Amino acid sequence: MLEQVLPKPHGLHARVQEAMRYATFAGGKRLRPFLVLNSAKLFDVDPAQAARVGAAIEVLHTYSLVHDDLPCMDDDDLRRGRPTTHIAYDEMTAVLAGDALLTLAFEILAEPATHASAEVRSALVLRLAQAGGHNGMIGGQMIDMQAAQSTFGIEEVKLLQRLKTGQLFEFSCEAGAILGQASAEDRQRLRDYAHDMGLVFQITDDLLDVTSTAEKTGKAVGKDQDQGKATLVSLMGIDGARAEAEKLARRAAATLAPYGNAAPELAELPMFLLDRES
Amino acid sequence: MLEQVLPKPHGLHARVQEAMRYATFAGGKRLRPFLVLNSAKLFDVDPAQAARVGAAIEVLHTYSLVHDDLPCMDDDDLRRGRPTTHIAYDEMTAVLAGDALLTLAFEILAEPATHASAEVRSALVLRLAQAGGHNGMIGGQMIDMQAAQSTFGIEEVKLLQRLKTGQLFEFSCEAGAILGQASAEDRQRLRDYAHDMGLVFQITDDLLDVTSTAEKTGKAVGKDQDQGKATLVSLMGIDGARAEAEKLARRAAATLAPYGNAAPELAELPMFLLDRES
Repeated sequence: MLEQVLPKPHGLHARVQEAMRYATFAGGKRLRPFLVLNSAKLFDVDPAQAARVGAAIEVLHTYSLVHDDLPCMDDDDLRRGRPTTHIAYDEMTAVLAGDALLTLAFEILAEPATHASAEVRSALVLRLAQAGGHNGMIGGQMIDMQAAQSTFGIEEVKLLQRLKTGQLFEFSCEAGAILGQASAEDRQRLRDYAHDMGLVFQITDDLLDVTSTAEKTGKAVGKDQDQGKATLVSLMGIDGARAEAEKLARRAAATLAPYGNAAPELAELPMFLLDRES
Repeated sequence: MLEQVLPKPHGLHARVQEAMRYATFAGGKRLRPFLVLNSAKLFDVDPAQAARVGAAIEVLHTYSLVHDDLPCMDDDDLRRGRPTTHIAYDEMTAVLAGDALLTLAFEILAEPATHASAEVRSALVLRLAQAGGHNGMIGGQMIDMQAAQSTFGIEEVKLLQRLKTGQLFEFSCEAGAILGQASAEDRQRLRDYAHDMGLVFQITDDLLDVTSTAEKTGKAVGKDQDQGKATLVSLMGIDGARAEAEKLARRAAATLAPYGNAAPELAELPMFLLDRES
């Protein structure tokens, strides 16, 4: 689906389209499209429509990585073992490619192919804009950039994570319910699941940062500690954080109980994350 | 309306919201909201709805200025006589504030307050994403960034302008017709008008860059020439470019003839631009 929604480079502006593709086709776990596809299964959604929404979220996630890697942000030269977009191209092209990916996410959602109902398309656009905007992902990024100079407690770190990564996870799961024109209760349930699953994701990510090696994770480790940033692991200790993640993983699976075994991958994901090595 | 749609700074991420406001409330001609409001008059649209769409376009236009001013792009320290956003704050905050303004534009359009019909809201989102995306404004910006190293002819410069500034003008005018649920013919007519008006805007801008002083325009002049960028004025000469602008201004006004005197400000705008001094 990503191949279908990304532009073919053409014309005098081909360079920005090439950079959009370079940033997007870089591997990655595709966790957010996975969440959309599997939450959509609960509500009998056409998988092609779910794939389009998954592609929109992945494209938006990719823009956030391109901009986060810029010299004025995290200043990363490598991502997933390849030069970051501003290294492979240049900073100017990376800024523009990120802007274009963000814009493309909304274009995909608003196209009639995403859903026959314009109410559904509008709701998807609205929720993605909220999840990705100043009170969502970007707000979380702003807090994160100030984290090294701050003394955050557990509540502040949870808020940071909920905004920076959690909101997009919540939208990814809620999107299946929106596509299926499910009830407000269903939408809330999927958001609750995503909230807990997102914290499990984050805690296990922080645990890997402390306990793993760069070889296993494919990226630099010990970075938060080096930058003096508080994490749930530094605040709760390795054992405390692991216990919290296990509790959240159980609660996330229980949240999906009303759907029986309709989307086993979704129910198993939090437990799977507890064992991840990368 | 801008005051209503921009967030009030709050919480740990207040800084990015402050920067969004700083960039937006910096004066400016508000030409794009003017185009929406006046094209909406042709189709009996609720002015409050037109104002919301105008605000969305202005917010998107503002993001493009914030990112264009970055050191890796045009590297401008001043805009409208004030420090640019990355000078007043820092580069990181400027990147994030631009991203947040872009996202906010789509949030505004998708909110039910913009129009009762979700079909209309979806159409607005889709057209703004196309106009502002890789085949629109961002594509034009990409071409512009390569212009100093290229030998563009009249067709290339017209394409650059049509993408970089023209597409957003076209959407601003078409938006009135979309809000009024007008015919495809009306939508095309408004785009045709905007196409010609946009070129008049650009040619007169280029003429000011050559013939005016920084005192009158409030910004640096002679910049295109210094950078070795071709413009319609450098390619057609001052007299040739002025004659072209006059021809386009007459054609733009004639395009609106079917609407009689329903939106005189729109019909007069191209002629008004011919006489502008800033």
